[in-house]
Amino acid sequence: MVNETIRNILARRSIRRFHDKPVEEDKVKLIIECAFAAPSAGNSRPAHFIVVDDKKLLSSLAKAHPFGKMLERCPLAIVVCGDPTQSEQASYYWEEDCSAAMENILLAAQALDLGSVWLGVQHAPAVELAVREFLKIPPHIKVLGIAALGYPAENKDPHEGILDGKVHLNQW
Amino acid sequence: MVNETIRNILARRSIRRFHDKPVEEDKVKLIIECAFAAPSAGNSRPAHFIVVDDKKLLSSLAKAHPFGKMLERCPLAIVVCGDPTQSEQASYYWEEDCSAAMENILLAAQALDLGSVWLGVQHAPAVELAVREFLKIPPHIKVLGIAALGYPAENKDPHEGILDGKVHLNQW
Repeated sequence: MVNETIRNILARRSIRRFHDKPVEEDKVKLIIECAFAAPSAGNSRPAHFIVVDDKKLLSSLAKAHPFGKMLERCPLAIVVCGDPTQSEQASYYWEEDCSAAMENILLAAQALDLGSVWLGVQHAPAVELAVREFLKIPPHIKVLGIAALGYPAENKDPHEGILDGKVHLNQW
Repeated sequence: MVNETIRNILARRSIRRFHDKPVEEDKVKLIIECAFAAPSAGNSRPAHFIVVDDKKLLSSLAKAHPFGKMLERCPLAIVVCGDPTQSEQASYYWEEDCSAAMENILLAAQALDLGSVWLGVQHAPAVELAVREFLKIPPHIKVLGIAALGYPAENKDPHEGILDGKVHLNQW
């Protein structure tokens, strides 16, 4: 019953060390296509994606984020943003919609032999402000987070199992 | 370059019509295992999952949710909850963490020949309250949403392409 897709979901781990090798443009396009394939409330699709491969910008992002050191050395980042003005539903659900898109990015990367890590942004106001300035993000757009991506230079075991006490049958 | 996992991500669509056929327990377990494999901020893993297959409860949920009619006729729902008291990071990031877990549920379902749809809950206070009561969810726990699941009785084309104006290179 366990197939390639299930194995891919279980195999995705946070990767913070990358080889000094660019990510092919075709792979970037496919990852972005997968990001757009995520569901969104009322299908309003509020997500925007900023593909960052400029070394100077990656270095600026690395300095701005307390857990973002790897951005200095990875070849690619995708910044996931949301437009809460896209629709009434987007104003409530942009975070959920953008998080699903982010998860698709990480899973698609894994499927294409890349590693990735999700760096949170929106709940760290100083980081959010710096990212916004470096990438010229308009004021009405929210910044969910950053995916750092590249060919992995570390190996991690796949996830397995179910956490005790966190699955409930029919009622809590 | 397009492999089974990429195809699975693109093929996932919101499915609202289901066959009257239960979902095998092994599949439910695998879906939940995939849900736990989602990333979380600081690895604090705040997600809880309520697996609902009781027909009376599914019917109650269907009546409580304005877009939840299909819960009356689907064999299974997984309610994704978050515990913001799990850690300081969970208090900020539980929505993002739980949304990634929800997306894993939908993608794992697709990989196991099931269909699914994500019903938002937390931003609809009356719905949230009803779900909370029916499923005896404790006050400190948040309810992200409900995945309705089952064998699909409708077909939809896969996603393709990239939305104009929503991909930016290096800066907005």
